Amino acid sequence: MSERRPKGWPARATIVEVGLRDGLQAERASLPTATKLALAEQLLAAGLRHLEVTSFVSPKAVPQLADAAELLAALPRRPGVELSALVPNAKGAERAVAAKVDAMVVFLSASESHNKKNLNRPIEQSLADIAEVTMIAEAARIPVHAAISVCFGCPFEGEVPLSRVLEIAEELAMLGIRHLSIADTTGMATPPLVRERVEALRQALPGVRLALHFHNTRGIGLCNVMVGLDCGIDRFESSIGGMGGCPFAPGATGNICTEDLVYLLHECGVETGIDLEALIAAAKAAEAAVGHPLPGQVMKAGPRLKLHPLEAVRTAAG
Amino acid sequence: MSERRPKGWPARATIVEVGLRDGLQAERASLPTATKLALAEQLLAAGLRHLEVTSFVSPKAVPQLADAAELLAALPRRPGVELSALVPNAKGAERAVAAKVDAMVVFLSASESHNKKNLNRPIEQSLADIAEVTMIAEAARIPVHAAISVCFGCPFEGEVPLSRVLEIAEELAMLGIRHLSIADTTGMATPPLVRERVEALRQALPGVRLALHFHNTRGIGLCNVMVGLDCGIDRFESSIGGMGGCPFAPGATGNICTEDLVYLLHECGVETGIDLEALIAAAKAAEAAVGHPLPGQVMKAGPRLKLHPLEAVRTAAG
Repeated sequence: MSERRPKGWPARATIVEVGLRDGLQAERASLPTATKLALAEQLLAAGLRHLEVTSFVSPKAVPQLADAAELLAALPRRPGVELSALVPNAKGAERAVAAKVDAMVVFLSASESHNKKNLNRPIEQSLADIAEVTMIAEAARIPVHAAISVCFGCPFEGEVPLSRVLEIAEELAMLGIRHLSIADTTGMATPPLVRERVEALRQALPGVRLALHFHNTRGIGLCNVMVGLDCGIDRFESSIGGMGGCPFAPGATGNICTEDLVYLLHECGVETGIDLEALIAAAKAAEAAVGHPLPGQVMKAGPRLKLHPLEAVRTAAG
Repeated sequence: MSERRPKGWPARATIVEVGLRDGLQAERASLPTATKLALAEQLLAAGLRHLEVTSFVSPKAVPQLADAAELLAALPRRPGVELSALVPNAKGAERAVAAKVDAMVVFLSASESHNKKNLNRPIEQSLADIAEVTMIAEAARIPVHAAISVCFGCPFEGEVPLSRVLEIAEELAMLGIRHLSIADTTGMATPPLVRERVEALRQALPGVRLALHFHNTRGIGLCNVMVGLDCGIDRFESSIGGMGGCPFAPGATGNICTEDLVYLLHECGVETGIDLEALIAAAKAAEAAVGHPLPGQVMKAGPRLKLHPLEAVRTAAG
């Protein structure tokens, strides 16, 4: 294969590891801070450079992430490494400044129902909160990224109009946002929707760098990544081992799995700077930490050229 | 979205359900014939028209499929429905003729090691066996399809040269094969390999109709389907609920999952003639039959517009 990478695909992609935040907040048990710290160290050692490590939401709402400040105090800071955290409002922003995050991630939903459920306020109010956060962040010289949830469908309302996603993205751009994550919070994205929305957003907001945040709730998370790559997107969010889940689908998968994503990217000739074997080791550590099997596949099967002795395995014909 | 289906993709695809054969032979327990029968009925009721239901290999080698003749005797025969079975040699072919299969599926591997492990003979000898089978089938006026295993990599040898796949496919074409399944037996296919191999096979054998048989062992089975569709392939093999597994990767997935595949196809505007809700019900029946969770995702999450009441679910911020 002379040209492994499909035409138009980026030569290199950035992975934002969100397992410690989006993964763990969906896990039943809270992990000790020391366990999170060890896992973060392992992820950094594997070559990941962007970790969304926690959230400054109310510890009552998300007890799994109540140790946000302690975790950030304990995490190693290295040049080139970005440790980010979700920030819902001014109070969260003050805590994030005190904890010296490398980047704040503000967020809201593309549907009123989901925003109400998730943030207990209308979208309009969330935009005002985000404006406050950006001012606090600017004063502290901390970059602000934004994420829009349920961009490909809402579990309460169904289809989410593209026009609504565009309007909210434009409002965020007017607040100074230059990094925007388009999130498929409950696994409703499909290849045609990804193409439609990514193309429209790129055209409307050429100065905003887009990331894609997919969940594998309906098994096609990595198919959606392929469409994103085909549209030129080079930043994806995923969770080690596929850690997490979906509040709407017991037993279904949550975020797409980091090591499966990295496997796909490498096999398609897209560089990530990540060591897949080290990532598999981190996925196994994550599995041990949460104490139940994780949905990642490459962590079970290994890279494709991991060979087997002819004698050891009995296969069935076919 | 005015044009949901990507350019060049087929408007309609055929799904060959292989769960009763490839799925069940990888399950530890043998299902009672009556259970298989009920499952087949449910799959047919959902709109599937092509079922690979069993294998006429040695019952000692694959005890899970020892009821091949009884199952075929009990299965309903309907116009437009094709019930096929794997046939390894002349002895198997005689049994398949007696059982009145609608189609025989002959098979061999693209690597010598895998062929030896699976069929206990060199590829050359398998081709001679297949010649015998085709003569028996022709006399009985039963169509013969062929499948080549490990076309995208061998768990014992590693990379499988494209030239070897092409040579074997050409030998099969000379034996009269017009339906050929290109199989990724242990989940080693990748998007660039799929494109390379499908394009080369289509060019070399324009008169042969290709099917793709992917496993999700490394999480990218449906990504490979997308590449196949982009190359114009319109026939895919899959297993209900993702039933099965991989002898080389404990805990990993086997065949790609039928209802997840159908979900992807429908969302991409490719028709299948299959009722997704009925297929989900069949997947749940398969899960109950094997007695452990199956890897299918859509069976857990439901179709994407299955909505949730705003009150019922507590989500965590983000």
